[in-house]
Amino acid sequence: MPVVSRRSQTVPLSPFRKLIPLADRARAKGKHIYHLNIGQPDIKTHPQAVARFRELPWEILDYSPSNGIDSYREALCGYYARFGVQLTADEIMVTTGGSEAILFFMLACLDPGDEIIIPEPFYANYNGYAHIAGVTVIPVTSDISDGFSIPNAEAFAEKITPRTRAIVITNPNNPTGACYSREEMELLSAIVREHDLFLCVDEVYREFSYDAPLQSVLQLEELHEHAIVIDSVSKRYSATGARVGALVCRNRSVRESVDRFAKLRLSPPGLGQRLSEVMLEDDGPYLQEVKEEYQRRRDIVYDRLRQMPGVFLSKPGGAFYCFARFPIADSEDFCRWLLEDFEYEGATVMLSPGPGFYATPGLGMDECRIAYVLNTGELAKSMDCLEAALSAYPGNTLTPAEADGAPAGASRFS
Amino acid sequence: MPVVSRRSQTVPLSPFRKLIPLADRARAKGKHIYHLNIGQPDIKTHPQAVARFRELPWEILDYSPSNGIDSYREALCGYYARFGVQLTADEIMVTTGGSEAILFFMLACLDPGDEIIIPEPFYANYNGYAHIAGVTVIPVTSDISDGFSIPNAEAFAEKITPRTRAIVITNPNNPTGACYSREEMELLSAIVREHDLFLCVDEVYREFSYDAPLQSVLQLEELHEHAIVIDSVSKRYSATGARVGALVCRNRSVRESVDRFAKLRLSPPGLGQRLSEVMLEDDGPYLQEVKEEYQRRRDIVYDRLRQMPGVFLSKPGGAFYCFARFPIADSEDFCRWLLEDFEYEGATVMLSPGPGFYATPGLGMDECRIAYVLNTGELAKSMDCLEAALSAYPGNTLTPAEADGAPAGASRFS
Repeated sequence: MPVVSRRSQTVPLSPFRKLIPLADRARAKGKHIYHLNIGQPDIKTHPQAVARFRELPWEILDYSPSNGIDSYREALCGYYARFGVQLTADEIMVTTGGSEAILFFMLACLDPGDEIIIPEPFYANYNGYAHIAGVTVIPVTSDISDGFSIPNAEAFAEKITPRTRAIVITNPNNPTGACYSREEMELLSAIVREHDLFLCVDEVYREFSYDAPLQSVLQLEELHEHAIVIDSVSKRYSATGARVGALVCRNRSVRESVDRFAKLRLSPPGLGQRLSEVMLEDDGPYLQEVKEEYQRRRDIVYDRLRQMPGVFLSKPGGAFYCFARFPIADSEDFCRWLLEDFEYEGATVMLSPGPGFYATPGLGMDECRIAYVLNTGELAKSMDCLEAALSAYPGNTLTPAEADGAPAGASRFS
Repeated sequence: MPVVSRRSQTVPLSPFRKLIPLADRARAKGKHIYHLNIGQPDIKTHPQAVARFRELPWEILDYSPSNGIDSYREALCGYYARFGVQLTADEIMVTTGGSEAILFFMLACLDPGDEIIIPEPFYANYNGYAHIAGVTVIPVTSDISDGFSIPNAEAFAEKITPRTRAIVITNPNNPTGACYSREEMELLSAIVREHDLFLCVDEVYREFSYDAPLQSVLQLEELHEHAIVIDSVSKRYSATGARVGALVCRNRSVRESVDRFAKLRLSPPGLGQRLSEVMLEDDGPYLQEVKEEYQRRRDIVYDRLRQMPGVFLSKPGGAFYCFARFPIADSEDFCRWLLEDFEYEGATVMLSPGPGFYATPGLGMDECRIAYVLNTGELAKSMDCLEAALSAYPGNTLTPAEADGAPAGASRFS
């Protein structure tokens, strides 16, 4: 019998993949699960746009140009202009979701054996695309105690080798919720210019920056030849199934390189592009409303978590995730226990264990990612459930006094 | 300034890519171009299904399961059952077009440095996916004189090495239009079973088999562990922009391997899948009508070409291509000349030069691919134009007597 490839056996898997069968079993037993593990929003896709999409006239669903429908790319220029970024339609290449843009970036900018530096914890699927591209991910560790801000220049300098080709960040960050300041972006700017690296910024959560306007890498003029932006309509319009993203880049060589891979797969999805184009037309009120909803959720989750004994987190500035430290020694065991052994008012919570977001072994053992993709009522109930779980968890590392409400940080985080 | 990857500079390009700027210039000068170079059909996407698609109720365009919407995969079981193939929904993995299925096959079944054997001429984009996957394409040459049938066992045996992992064919074939017989499939079956290889069959033109029912590899029971089918709705429903395909495989290890890559990109396109599902519901009359239309076109092109002095081709049994030998020495020069230097009644034709479909250098120099994706009226005019072009082409290799209509094959093909 023919055998499969070795590389297929070592594809890095999702941090919560092992939990899925446990969740299925819990559900089969009648337990309700608050899904705080996934990035699938419960918010309706831009309804007015969906209605217009249904009425669009078309008879042949043909290939679009490989870099996207011209009128959609023109319209996207107007979108970027809203935050002061002037682009031509040529500088925007429409992709099959942000995922394909990540793959195209790696194929176009890195050869097998080349290295990318990524602050950890990071979006775990970068590992998978690096695996396909034969690229090595070099982590530089960011710190929960300062809100997972960008590590300092020395931390990056230690990691740069002759094979380093790019730094990759997610801003706002998945899984941490961090939004990077102008100073942090300028630190990265100095590093990539000094070492002739690309700076690839995944900005798919751009619209969800709650406390300050997002600093897009496209706003940094000195990075015109270095910056590559990964974009997507998935989270922005709650349309993850559209599979429409973009790779935005002013560097002509990069675009020509990406274009070769884009031509190979002929065309990004035609219906998703048509929907995306009509979603852009009047998205202001929709985006505002969705952002306010996520901000309310952020506030609930943050306020509740910080009051739980032994839980530590910084206030996440964006995206719809927070990454918190819990009074536990093994977050995979905790997440397993939540599904298998715990129940509170007929329900439990599903979280993503921290280690899957780190490339350095042993990190994130007491951390979990929480995606606040439930409505505020459900979210509050999920926090009740999580709080009860922490009290009941046999592996809780707090002393009885701490668990009773002594200042959480006193002994652990000073 | 950071530099792009070396691999991006060596992506194999489309056989007619170099001609596109020439076509743009010709068009700008007011010349009409009969596009016989591309695989974009002019036929309407299944109209009744499109109407139903517009009315489908949905509010959140969410991620579908990574292997496709359950109900769509269930419906596809019914589709395959029409030609006697019993599948479970698990054995069908929905992909982002046939293109992604090709990539997934290569990643799941081959490691870098492994080899696939493909009868040439073949669909040129296989080269591009092999390039991404680091896989080596080994051609075995098929022959225009016997209608590009599958080469004999010895021809394959010469090419098999310890790194060979699979044979890949396209059935019906792009670019040749060949449909393979039961005997040809059984020859391949014996080879792949003897050498423990996969047999990957790209059946995206399955519905367009004009002279006999298509022999799908899925019908060969002895190949249940060897066969991988690439499928797509693109050509079947004239919906190339849907970007919905499938990888069909009964081998569980292959599916588990593909699944890891499928999970990484989260989901195939949601709108395209919904459209594809409704297109399946009542596609019988539509498919019949479309097939008859292509058959009429096939007959026009074949009848006209075989009457042109010095042109040789076998009757193509399927797909919407034919691959013909012309009385020319350099098909790239001929295709360039057609666009730059020739005009007949204000028009010219655009063809795909033969060499781009071969991996062996020097082959296909006197061959071109013709895609019959114009309606019968336009197609007849394009044949007038091509016939006039062959008469006028300075590089025509016929003697004056042959060009005047002496039996075309007499001196060249006996």
